[in-house]
Amino acid sequence: MAQPYDLPLEELRVYKPELTKRPDFDAFWSNTLDKLAEVPLSYERTEIPYPVRGIKVYRILYQGFNHARIEAILAMPESSQPLPGIAAYHGYNWCMDNDIHDTVDLALKGYAVLRMMCRGQHGLSVDNVISSNGHVSGWMAKGIQDKEEYYYRAVYMDAVRAIDVLASMPEVDGSRIAVTGGSQGGAITLAAAALSSVPKLAVADYPYLSHFQRAIEITPNGPYGELNEYFKRHSGSPEIEVKAMETLSYFDLMNLAPRITCFSWITIGLVDTITPPSTVFATYNHMVCDKDIAVYRYHGHELIPGSIMPRLQLFMDYLQN
Amino acid sequence: MAQPYDLPLEELRVYKPELTKRPDFDAFWSNTLDKLAEVPLSYERTEIPYPVRGIKVYRILYQGFNHARIEAILAMPESSQPLPGIAAYHGYNWCMDNDIHDTVDLALKGYAVLRMMCRGQHGLSVDNVISSNGHVSGWMAKGIQDKEEYYYRAVYMDAVRAIDVLASMPEVDGSRIAVTGGSQGGAITLAAAALSSVPKLAVADYPYLSHFQRAIEITPNGPYGELNEYFKRHSGSPEIEVKAMETLSYFDLMNLAPRITCFSWITIGLVDTITPPSTVFATYNHMVCDKDIAVYRYHGHELIPGSIMPRLQLFMDYLQN
Amino acid sequence: MAQPYDLPLEELRVYKPELTKRPDFDAFWSNTLDKLAEVPLSYERTEIPYPVRGIKVYRILYQGFNHARIEAILAMPESSQPLPGIAAYHGYNWCMDNDIHDTVDLALKGYAVLRMMCRGQHGLSVDNVISSNGHVSGWMAKGIQDKEEYYYRAVYMDAVRAIDVLASMPEVDGSRIAVTGGSQGGAITLAAAALSSVPKLAVADYPYLSHFQRAIEITPNGPYGELNEYFKRHSGSPEIEVKAMETLSYFDLMNLAPRITCFSWITIGLVDTITPPSTVFATYNHMVCDKDIAVYRYHGHELIPGSIMPRLQLFMDYLQN
Amino acid sequence: MAQPYDLPLEELRVYKPELTKRPDFDAFWSNTLDKLAEVPLSYERTEIPYPVRGIKVYRILYQGFNHARIEAILAMPESSQPLPGIAAYHGYNWCMDNDIHDTVDLALKGYAVLRMMCRGQHGLSVDNVISSNGHVSGWMAKGIQDKEEYYYRAVYMDAVRAIDVLASMPEVDGSRIAVTGGSQGGAITLAAAALSSVPKLAVADYPYLSHFQRAIEITPNGPYGELNEYFKRHSGSPEIEVKAMETLSYFDLMNLAPRITCFSWITIGLVDTITPPSTVFATYNHMVCDKDIAVYRYHGHELIPGSIMPRLQLFMDYLQN
Amino acid sequence: MAQPYDLPLEELRVYKPELTKRPDFDAFWSNTLDKLAEVPLSYERTEIPYPVRGIKVYRILYQGFNHARIEAILAMPESSQPLPGIAAYHGYNWCMDNDIHDTVDLALKGYAVLRMMCRGQHGLSVDNVISSNGHVSGWMAKGIQDKEEYYYRAVYMDAVRAIDVLASMPEVDGSRIAVTGGSQGGAITLAAAALSSVPKLAVADYPYLSHFQRAIEITPNGPYGELNEYFKRHSGSPEIEVKAMETLSYFDLMNLAPRITCFSWITIGLVDTITPPSTVFATYNHMVCDKDIAVYRYHGHELIPGSIMPRLQLFMDYLQN
Amino acid sequence: MAQPYDLPLEELRVYKPELTKRPDFDAFWSNTLDKLAEVPLSYERTEIPYPVRGIKVYRILYQGFNHARIEAILAMPESSQPLPGIAAYHGYNWCMDNDIHDTVDLALKGYAVLRMMCRGQHGLSVDNVISSNGHVSGWMAKGIQDKEEYYYRAVYMDAVRAIDVLASMPEVDGSRIAVTGGSQGGAITLAAAALSSVPKLAVADYPYLSHFQRAIEITPNGPYGELNEYFKRHSGSPEIEVKAMETLSYFDLMNLAPRITCFSWITIGLVDTITPPSTVFATYNHMVCDKDIAVYRYHGHELIPGSIMPRLQLFMDYLQN
Repeated sequence: MAQPYDLPLEELRVYKPELTKRPDFDAFWSNTLDKLAEVPLSYERTEIPYPVRGIKVYRILYQGFNHARIEAILAMPESSQPLPGIAAYHGYNWCMDNDIHDTVDLALKGYAVLRMMCRGQHGLSVDNVISSNGHVSGWMAKGIQDKEEYYYRAVYMDAVRAIDVLASMPEVDGSRIAVTGGSQGGAITLAAAALSSVPKLAVADYPYLSHFQRAIEITPNGPYGELNEYFKRHSGSPEIEVKAMETLSYFDLMNLAPRITCFSWITIGLVDTITPPSTVFATYNHMVCDKDIAVYRYHGHELIPGSIMPRLQLFMDYLQN
Repeated sequence: MAQPYDLPLEELRVYKPELTKRPDFDAFWSNTLDKLAEVPLSYERTEIPYPVRGIKVYRILYQGFNHARIEAILAMPESSQPLPGIAAYHGYNWCMDNDIHDTVDLALKGYAVLRMMCRGQHGLSVDNVISSNGHVSGWMAKGIQDKEEYYYRAVYMDAVRAIDVLASMPEVDGSRIAVTGGSQGGAITLAAAALSSVPKLAVADYPYLSHFQRAIEITPNGPYGELNEYFKRHSGSPEIEVKAMETLSYFDLMNLAPRITCFSWITIGLVDTITPPSTVFATYNHMVCDKDIAVYRYHGHELIPGSIMPRLQLFMDYLQN
Repeated sequence: MAQPYDLPLEELRVYKPELTKRPDFDAFWSNTLDKLAEVPLSYERTEIPYPVRGIKVYRILYQGFNHARIEAILAMPESSQPLPGIAAYHGYNWCMDNDIHDTVDLALKGYAVLRMMCRGQHGLSVDNVISSNGHVSGWMAKGIQDKEEYYYRAVYMDAVRAIDVLASMPEVDGSRIAVTGGSQGGAITLAAAALSSVPKLAVADYPYLSHFQRAIEITPNGPYGELNEYFKRHSGSPEIEVKAMETLSYFDLMNLAPRITCFSWITIGLVDTITPPSTVFATYNHMVCDKDIAVYRYHGHELIPGSIMPRLQLFMDYLQN
Repeated sequence: MAQPYDLPLEELRVYKPELTKRPDFDAFWSNTLDKLAEVPLSYERTEIPYPVRGIKVYRILYQGFNHARIEAILAMPESSQPLPGIAAYHGYNWCMDNDIHDTVDLALKGYAVLRMMCRGQHGLSVDNVISSNGHVSGWMAKGIQDKEEYYYRAVYMDAVRAIDVLASMPEVDGSRIAVTGGSQGGAITLAAAALSSVPKLAVADYPYLSHFQRAIEITPNGPYGELNEYFKRHSGSPEIEVKAMETLSYFDLMNLAPRITCFSWITIGLVDTITPPSTVFATYNHMVCDKDIAVYRYHGHELIPGSIMPRLQLFMDYLQN
Repeated sequence: MAQPYDLPLEELRVYKPELTKRPDFDAFWSNTLDKLAEVPLSYERTEIPYPVRGIKVYRILYQGFNHARIEAILAMPESSQPLPGIAAYHGYNWCMDNDIHDTVDLALKGYAVLRMMCRGQHGLSVDNVISSNGHVSGWMAKGIQDKEEYYYRAVYMDAVRAIDVLASMPEVDGSRIAVTGGSQGGAITLAAAALSSVPKLAVADYPYLSHFQRAIEITPNGPYGELNEYFKRHSGSPEIEVKAMETLSYFDLMNLAPRITCFSWITIGLVDTITPPSTVFATYNHMVCDKDIAVYRYHGHELIPGSIMPRLQLFMDYLQN
Repeated sequence: MAQPYDLPLEELRVYKPELTKRPDFDAFWSNTLDKLAEVPLSYERTEIPYPVRGIKVYRILYQGFNHARIEAILAMPESSQPLPGIAAYHGYNWCMDNDIHDTVDLALKGYAVLRMMCRGQHGLSVDNVISSNGHVSGWMAKGIQDKEEYYYRAVYMDAVRAIDVLASMPEVDGSRIAVTGGSQGGAITLAAAALSSVPKLAVADYPYLSHFQRAIEITPNGPYGELNEYFKRHSGSPEIEVKAMETLSYFDLMNLAPRITCFSWITIGLVDTITPPSTVFATYNHMVCDKDIAVYRYHGHELIPGSIMPRLQLFMDYLQN
């Protein structure tokens, strides 16, 4: 795709829309973290045979938000030293074969990597928050009429807990933990960095769930469109949209961005039609931590090979020194 | 679309693949109906103002399977006589503005029409059966690793209960009830006719959820593809597919077809690429009740105007005489 | 579709391009109406059996412009009182099975509804104005080299006559008549309201044939493109385009808009790619009658359920009180 | 396109479905030719300046069927000898700038070329046969309820008359006339060869209007689909389709094929999705004249450069010796 | 396509971005022409039988840049007078059957026409410049890391030599030579006009290879996208793009434009999505020769019939008087 | 994609078309290997910094066929033991950022991995065999008129030499070498296994360049279509196709298959539309070595996660024991 549909780069650099947080935004998250704290840190760990020497792979079943069973893959090299850890999160509706091979490939580079399966989306992760509203296919509108029920409330908390689970592993040095992921996984990465004090580094590729207002206006493809479809199906009930936008404000990364304190590195392709650059810059420009953003002129919503070396360098700099 | 991709009509007429039911098929449904029976018949009814004279429209909230709150729209003409009733079911991921206007339009023809919102898909219908397995976006694989948890178990039961709710309305003559719907709604229609003894007539347009084995093989478009996608995401775990196909066998209309006793009328377009004709004929050819099928050469998965007069005639013949 | 391609809503609200009428615009329509007046009001009415109680359905064959035979469907509830009437017009190249079922559904709400089949497009309506110029497939360029021959001249007049035919029915109260339709039908609705003094109300959904100059510039899909194609096929003869644009000026709703006197209600979806919002607002902003416009952010060129209740309320307010 | 969707070549070679002619087929055409004979041979000829030396180009306006004005382009090299003539016909909804340049390019090779504009489709050719039935956009269903009114009746006759007009030009040797065209033009070419005794040679590229029954069943793209759409819009009136198929039988090239007596050369691409190979072979295999067919494995419905030299050789062999 | 994606016409008229030439731009071309001059003018000429009287057609094999064998088609009318000549160039990845028929059709209008086959793209033209860098499929990035190796360096030189070959034919008057082509052929036409003093006239349709910087930013379709893809595949090596853009500057028509001295006529369609109008105007507005541009509102990247008469007139005016 | 377009699995299992080899097939390859043997084994090796501990990464520039410079990436874990080696080949027109990260990820599992860049397609690999024929964009028809010049002759030889280069590395145990790749890389894998006696194991995913005759007939997407396009562009010269098919017979994996002696494992998805299953089975069923094929019902031409564990197990079984 050659023709950019979003703002030119020089405008993106300074694009900083007003935050949409409601007055009780921080209270909501404080209460939510309290609710998570009521769930004890608890997990089962079972080894999965993997035909590579020097690596250990485990299935983890841990208690997530609302006591839900959450599955994760944990891989780590055999090591006599405590390992730095990376909590990893997958994309929306995208996890294949538990992403076990990607997890192993990252672990082989010297990290204990724990990849959480998002509740309801894959594996044995159980989505046990019941929604009072029906919704279009997908998870974007699940629970959207009530911030206590919204799907991503539990997911963000599961992600915070995943970090704690990883940090508690006997082989892991809990003081050297990073979070990472792309798209939905990039959103969860930044949310976890905003809601947990553990991570020392966040690496988020083209994060989703950013600046919903603009996303609804301009995103050509992908799951933001579920929101448009949801609103369209209630054409006679505009109050449904009003309430939904209020709910979304609590989960918008843009609003969570100022809470992030660890170094954060974000990547974005300028022809990304699923998480438009302006929505990503909206979040980035509201971050007050140390940070950097890598912009790729020719990439869309896809793996960007040129971003791999810099991220491996960051993992080394922040976790191995 | 001119080029048929499925069997020619003369082969469709006699297409009758072997049933896939497991030995405990009937026991499963008997137990499931018992479980429904534990939920008391109970509903709230609130009038919705509608700017047409001579019609009454209500929001119904009733208890469905597992005590879930299920929403329905009920519309009926003002009448001094008991009214025949029609329970109506909507398509997959498709209900807009509660389908209230379609409900009214049918009611104006002399029927008390109750349209159930499928749990989780729209309105205030609550999907309260928690699934132990993650699934791809949509509902096709929700709970698919356990027949007790599969999404459509509850939906079929909600549909049976919807009939009872309709029949219990003071204005309704419970001995004159039909069921109807298209696509997912057509599937629910036939399932309800198979699992409830109340309906006198079933009118099902291009019913979904029929002959899953073939659907997975040939369906070019639409939600059957969620199954293909789900199996694809477990390429290293073939047992997942085996188990899922077993679960689906309990919900396959083809297997439920022999239980239907009321007159049933089915429509299908020969260029339907979402519910392929052969999957529909597989169910139809296994039905042993009085039945007829209307075949439309030039239609796909869409409203078929030529089918409206015959269906209205059937409603009149079976419900108004 | 999430990304708007037309003007933002705040600019649409005030978008009022200069009219393109030629000096003899009103004379042209005056002469055309005179020509229609030479055709006597005359029709045949034959009952069509319809399997619903309390409704009467008729095929009407009436004399339209240039004495052409025009077919219409008339449906009305059985009533001892004079009925209000609605003249209805269908979309471009779109009428299926005479739209008989939509006509009945509206009639059941308490109206005598007459739906005209556009000449040449469906049913037995005869397009008897011969065009001296060839044209691309469709009707947009038929007769476009001569305003006396242009296709919509006859259609607009047939529509005016349809109102008179409806008003003359013995069951109808000719003082309570509305006009309605969507797309091409919305254009005919407004043209009929501009050229007939009978209607008390006009309800036009995403009207077509508005502000041709801009339509040619920006419309991504749909039949406006026939004009682009027609001009393209005469790339060596620019005078063909000049003459055609002159002809179109006589039929542009924008130019007819100031003639409308009855209350008019217009609907438009902001992602409509067939009748772009700006073309609709161009006409709306030139209307000087009482008026309102309902804007739907998430809809394209399609049925908008949220617009049904307000329109039924309008029909009730203007026709039943 | 690599994947053939039609019969394999060896089956095409012998594909000869039963003819669909009605008993009065020949009488119909005899009467139609009589009706044409009532129109006097008459034309106007006006020179068009063309910036090439040695060529003369004219606009011809002649009387066609039903006395309609038909436009044609005539081009011929300056020559002191009588010239052989080629009557040429254009494709469906396709003529651009009167195809004047293609006409000149063929004329420069030593022929008087007259290219007829199909009535209603381009230029000043007037479609003056009024149809009693409405039809979908295009010409395929125009007049289809009555063989006397069907659009191609007049077109075929205009084409026969075009040959006579060409043959009557003072510069032309009327005993050396060929007919040619592609797609719709290929159909008209063969129809003219079947209905006129003048042509010595027919060169038809991927002829349209052949074997309608199969065309309706299998054609993926293009204007045959208008028939499918027309039938679809009358889903409640199957008699409409029955009557239409009867009408089409009179115009099906397959039925006209046995009447052709001149040498005929046909081309077809095996991945033609607009005029499927089997429909073309159906006609070809029913021809009893001297004939040949050139099959191109890799071409669709498009110019086939490899067919140009053989056709120029044929023109030379049949017209210049 | 109705919706323009590029600048409005009034802005195109004055769109004149800064040139990107490097200081040694003219030296580079001077050296390159010197290198061409080292190759002797030499060709073989073999007659190809063509079934048209009065025309001669030849296969030409001549020595191009770097002594490569280059194939061309030469066609000319039999004539006792010296003929004016036209050197013609084909589009990118587009030449079919050597474009022999188009060549003949132009020759029949009174010109000796020589059509060069681009090296590597068709026929027997040999691309003998070896590239040190790999590249994406196509020719756009072949040799792009070194201006001495870039693919179009040799092509432009082959084109200059083609003119000399044509001018040297015994039947040709070398003082009356034009150059012409569309798309890639349009680019080569202008490059040849800039680098050879022979042509008296250049006719270039929607020329390619113009204003690469903008082309990379906005072009929706076609081979400019190879550059985007090439840069994308080196996401970790931004110096690759820097070097490539430097190389392209030597071949950008915009930079060559001021060197053209003969009258030049350019055509462009406003909905051309392969060679965007702004890229073409960038070159046009930098030309300082006598010139004109023909703009077609409704055409994309395709044959524009309306441009044929004016170009034939130009050929006549410049070559035959 | 649900609808298979190729043969059903049970037919694929036994699909074994006749080989197309010419009598001098083995002589051709013997001569070609002799020609390779004239090039001395020679390479340069430069370390590339990579931010992962315990891994070494090098750029290799070695002499390939015809003395061309070929680039490869070599990655290996730090190890005190001789390492098994894997020669890896990339897909057609697909290599991004030298696939360096994939190479590292495989090396980390305990292998010295050398990934060859295909000449002309990426990096610094130089395609120095000059082709006497022009060809369509891509490499499929490059040199196709002469088996000595065909593009893949050199590529297959470069691949054989890559194995020797890898085996000659001081850290590598040359007796434990595997070859692997997908698509084009799968084809090169099998060709290398057929033409080199070094490999102990071949792992080929959906191999390309198999059974060209059928590929041309049925392949819906991807680069086989270049052949169709090439033949199409020579519609007047059928001898071009005859000669090309003869050339291809020397490179068809099906013909090379019987020469493979090491254990070979092949994967194929049943909805692969780029390398159709039947073309892959044609090669597989002609292999006489120990072999296995893994069939994935739901995958197309894409990474198949379920195939990763079995392949890693094979690498371990064949290379590490």
